[in-house]
Amino acid sequence: MVLIAAEEDIGARITETLRSRFVERGAVAAAHGDEFAALWRTAGDHVLGGKLIRPRLLLDMHRAMTVGGDPTVASDEIAVELSVSVELLHYAFLLHDDVIDGDLMRRRRPNFIGAIAHARGRTPQETDLHWARTSAILMGDLLMSAAVLGFARVEVAAQTRGRLLDLMDHVIMETVAGEHTDVGLSDGVIAPDLETVLAMTASKTASYSFALPLRAAAVLAGAPPAVETGMTAIGRHLGLAYQLQDDLLCVFGDSRDHGKDAFSDLREGKETAIIAFARQTEEWPSIEPLIGAANLSAEAAARARERLRACGAERYVRALVREQFDAVDAALAELQDSDSLSDGEAATVRALTERIGSRTA
Amino acid sequence: MVLIAAEEDIGARITETLRSRFVERGAVAAAHGDEFAALWRTAGDHVLGGKLIRPRLLLDMHRAMTVGGDPTVASDEIAVELSVSVELLHYAFLLHDDVIDGDLMRRRRPNFIGAIAHARGRTPQETDLHWARTSAILMGDLLMSAAVLGFARVEVAAQTRGRLLDLMDHVIMETVAGEHTDVGLSDGVIAPDLETVLAMTASKTASYSFALPLRAAAVLAGAPPAVETGMTAIGRHLGLAYQLQDDLLCVFGDSRDHGKDAFSDLREGKETAIIAFARQTEEWPSIEPLIGAANLSAEAAARARERLRACGAERYVRALVREQFDAVDAALAELQDSDSLSDGEAATVRALTERIGSRTA
Repeated sequence: MVLIAAEEDIGARITETLRSRFVERGAVAAAHGDEFAALWRTAGDHVLGGKLIRPRLLLDMHRAMTVGGDPTVASDEIAVELSVSVELLHYAFLLHDDVIDGDLMRRRRPNFIGAIAHARGRTPQETDLHWARTSAILMGDLLMSAAVLGFARVEVAAQTRGRLLDLMDHVIMETVAGEHTDVGLSDGVIAPDLETVLAMTASKTASYSFALPLRAAAVLAGAPPAVETGMTAIGRHLGLAYQLQDDLLCVFGDSRDHGKDAFSDLREGKETAIIAFARQTEEWPSIEPLIGAANLSAEAAARARERLRACGAERYVRALVREQFDAVDAALAELQDSDSLSDGEAATVRALTERIGSRTA
Repeated sequence: MVLIAAEEDIGARITETLRSRFVERGAVAAAHGDEFAALWRTAGDHVLGGKLIRPRLLLDMHRAMTVGGDPTVASDEIAVELSVSVELLHYAFLLHDDVIDGDLMRRRRPNFIGAIAHARGRTPQETDLHWARTSAILMGDLLMSAAVLGFARVEVAAQTRGRLLDLMDHVIMETVAGEHTDVGLSDGVIAPDLETVLAMTASKTASYSFALPLRAAAVLAGAPPAVETGMTAIGRHLGLAYQLQDDLLCVFGDSRDHGKDAFSDLREGKETAIIAFARQTEEWPSIEPLIGAANLSAEAAARARERLRACGAERYVRALVREQFDAVDAALAELQDSDSLSDGEAATVRALTERIGSRTA
């Protein structure tokens, strides 16, 4: 019997399992030519360079839900497999997101598309970019199907597998719907009211990043449906809080901390809750001209920031974040009151809430 | 006990199952907004407007493999479910293929992307096209995961499900590798030698269009691994023959029959076996300037056709097609000699071979 003992062990196990998955796939891919094998190596490097937040969350919750019980080695390995699939799904979404947004960078470094394009030459030509974007579409397809197959292949009771597959199905539908709405907002197809922006944010980010790992751990532990329902709500609130924090950091945070380009959301004209709130205020006519200008100066961005503060958008979104945390507390209390969740399980979620609440990057 | 009786019944069952799948998904999608629900309606219309060759092939083979045995209603329904998943996978590949190629039309009618873009206005603007392409990427993701989930959810013995999942895994990897190579050839990343072009063709088209339905039927019927291996080879040869026929039709066929734009392959500079062969001949310098010119006149195209004939490319590719059919015959004979395949099963494959051999469209 092996219990996952420490934080570092979890990280190492996820990394090793992911690495061996990419090595194994790369070996299969090599039969289809050097370029295809290289694609897998590049993808593996990028995935392994990530923070692996989602698989860690699944394994943290799994540990909390099986501690004191009798976690067999098998169930532990299944949790690792599921967590790896969650990361592959995340990366598949990132790849397609970057294709859709035309991004070549992520957190100031070349993303997968940028890396493939630059490998073709110092100054990528249009065909190099086409090749790189195509590679990202196709690698996204491979990783998305690998994620679903990963969930399908776990050796668990039929009922558990059915719940895991329903979960995967639901989460993919919800995430894609969120992405679709997000692009609809940017492309002017969907009206950017606050309610739509918040629903989009919850669908696009919270569902697969938080609800999926929490729910997968619950299903694997054989938790009753009430716990899964509770985890769905908790994941939604945490994910919304996480994304709203992200939006706040990009406009009001210190770019030396958060690692993104300062004010990149303002330059891209991203439809965040901050902007959707500001649009309803009297300050909007003075803010609007500053939003979505690719060449927005640092000075003008600072002016936009001040106006977003003055119109109450910052205050409103910070309050929204607190509301999410309060909602998590309420959901946890309800699950604990009905003895559906142990103190250790609740503590794991609370620790996560605190990490999100105090983040600056 | 219900036996699938006639050709029309098969078509009707596939259509009805597909239709209800899209209706059910559309109802779920409606919770995420009108635009997302509309996406599912458009996709459903396009899928149902297809020829459904792949699901028919699976069900034909399933019928041949279970006739005389004891096909229960359940196994019959599972075959229909699998066949629908095969069609969803096909359409997912088409969608991403059209995004990659920048196509707005398919067989002279607006494809999914064209339909979405035109719904935004008579003369689609860049944001309309972005919205349409994004919709195609996302719908492809949804349908690809739906296809894998469809295979994962069938209620069969664990071993059978394992074989079906391995099959799906293998086929997705192979198809994506083929598409990757195809784009690498167009973008000048991969050298266009004949061997590479043929391997690409088999991977991109034969694997999911022929080997997948044939093998899925074999696995479902509990056929021994030898039959699956045989079906893999047969599917590869049939698929290669089908695609080579397609290439021949586009250059040497009558566009009033085959429905594609006359000479579209020549205009697009598509790397077909015809072109890869011609490149090795002395005629190539006189052919090369005519290939890949978007404004290629009918007269110049006719000249290119004559030179492709004169250099032996047509003869070579027609011989290649015959070789594929001969290889199918040999594989069938071997399976029959070892009593791995019944006469009825072999006849089903032979009928398919004849349909492909005699097609003009």
